[in-house]
Amino acid sequence: MAAVAVLVTNLFEDSEYIHPTDAFRKAGHRVIPIGVTAGETVWGKTDHTPVAIERAVAESSVDDFDALLIPGGYSPDKLRVDAAVVAFVHDFVASGKPVFLICHAPQLLITAQVLSNRTVTGYASIVQDIRNAGATYVDAEVVEDGNLISSRNPGDLAAFTRAALRRLAA
Amino acid sequence: MAAVAVLVTNLFEDSEYIHPTDAFRKAGHRVIPIGVTAGETVWGKTDHTPVAIERAVAESSVDDFDALLIPGGYSPDKLRVDAAVVAFVHDFVASGKPVFLICHAPQLLITAQVLSNRTVTGYASIVQDIRNAGATYVDAEVVEDGNLISSRNPGDLAAFTRAALRRLAA
Repeated sequence: MAAVAVLVTNLFEDSEYIHPTDAFRKAGHRVIPIGVTAGETVWGKTDHTPVAIERAVAESSVDDFDALLIPGGYSPDKLRVDAAVVAFVHDFVASGKPVFLICHAPQLLITAQVLSNRTVTGYASIVQDIRNAGATYVDAEVVEDGNLISSRNPGDLAAFTRAALRRLAA
Repeated sequence: MAAVAVLVTNLFEDSEYIHPTDAFRKAGHRVIPIGVTAGETVWGKTDHTPVAIERAVAESSVDDFDALLIPGGYSPDKLRVDAAVVAFVHDFVASGKPVFLICHAPQLLITAQVLSNRTVTGYASIVQDIRNAGATYVDAEVVEDGNLISSRNPGDLAAFTRAALRRLAA
């Protein structure tokens, strides 16, 4: 079974945390919320779902996890100003391990400068940012390109979670 | 005296609306909140300041105004998915009339594809997006490049508003 790091801070999109992590746990995988400060509780933007951060990114290594999930909302915008978070995302994408991106999550890969020549989807507001980063944007419910699996918004969650579970089982 | 359009929707950064518009009104200028839907009330993200939208962007023309102010927060992220708003921002920047940008406001100019070869500042989270759009990012409290006057965050508001008032008086 896989250890899946989930990178979040305040104003994450609740459903994009809850839907995949519930399914991961049901399938027997371990879910580890990671963020800026261990022990902190962060809150969703829509339903104020509380999430307790288990591990600080600055004290974590890519070697500790098998996959990374980045929910959207405004959490990625807040996380991309943190140098340790950006370095962790850079290293995770470079490792080849699966990275599950939904909604605004590609913003973190833009700041980490690992989106060039990749193919992803993402939330409608960041399409031009994705293209300007040198990536190909595809308007589809799930886009798979190597270790990157991406979806657009909460409406894509069923397909997104199915694709992520398939990858974790592989 | 100038007619200044202020482009906002929900989750705007309260102080970035209040500080400049109070100063504009005190200097005798007219402030016209514009947005997606006329008559709608939108709310700030920090202090829940209500702002009544006077004019829909889709029913507005650049000719109706002398300058444009775009406050930050998450309002620009929401506005950049609206084609009429993006077209209006494009035309305003192209007109040469003053455009005052703070915080996340450059996101709208990225989607409008009018930031290439310009020099601006903006919120720390969008620095890579600004660079990828072909612009030069400068880390300063106010950056002036032709008709674009930009600042980074609420801490720059005093200098930002002074620069905007100077431009409106010119």
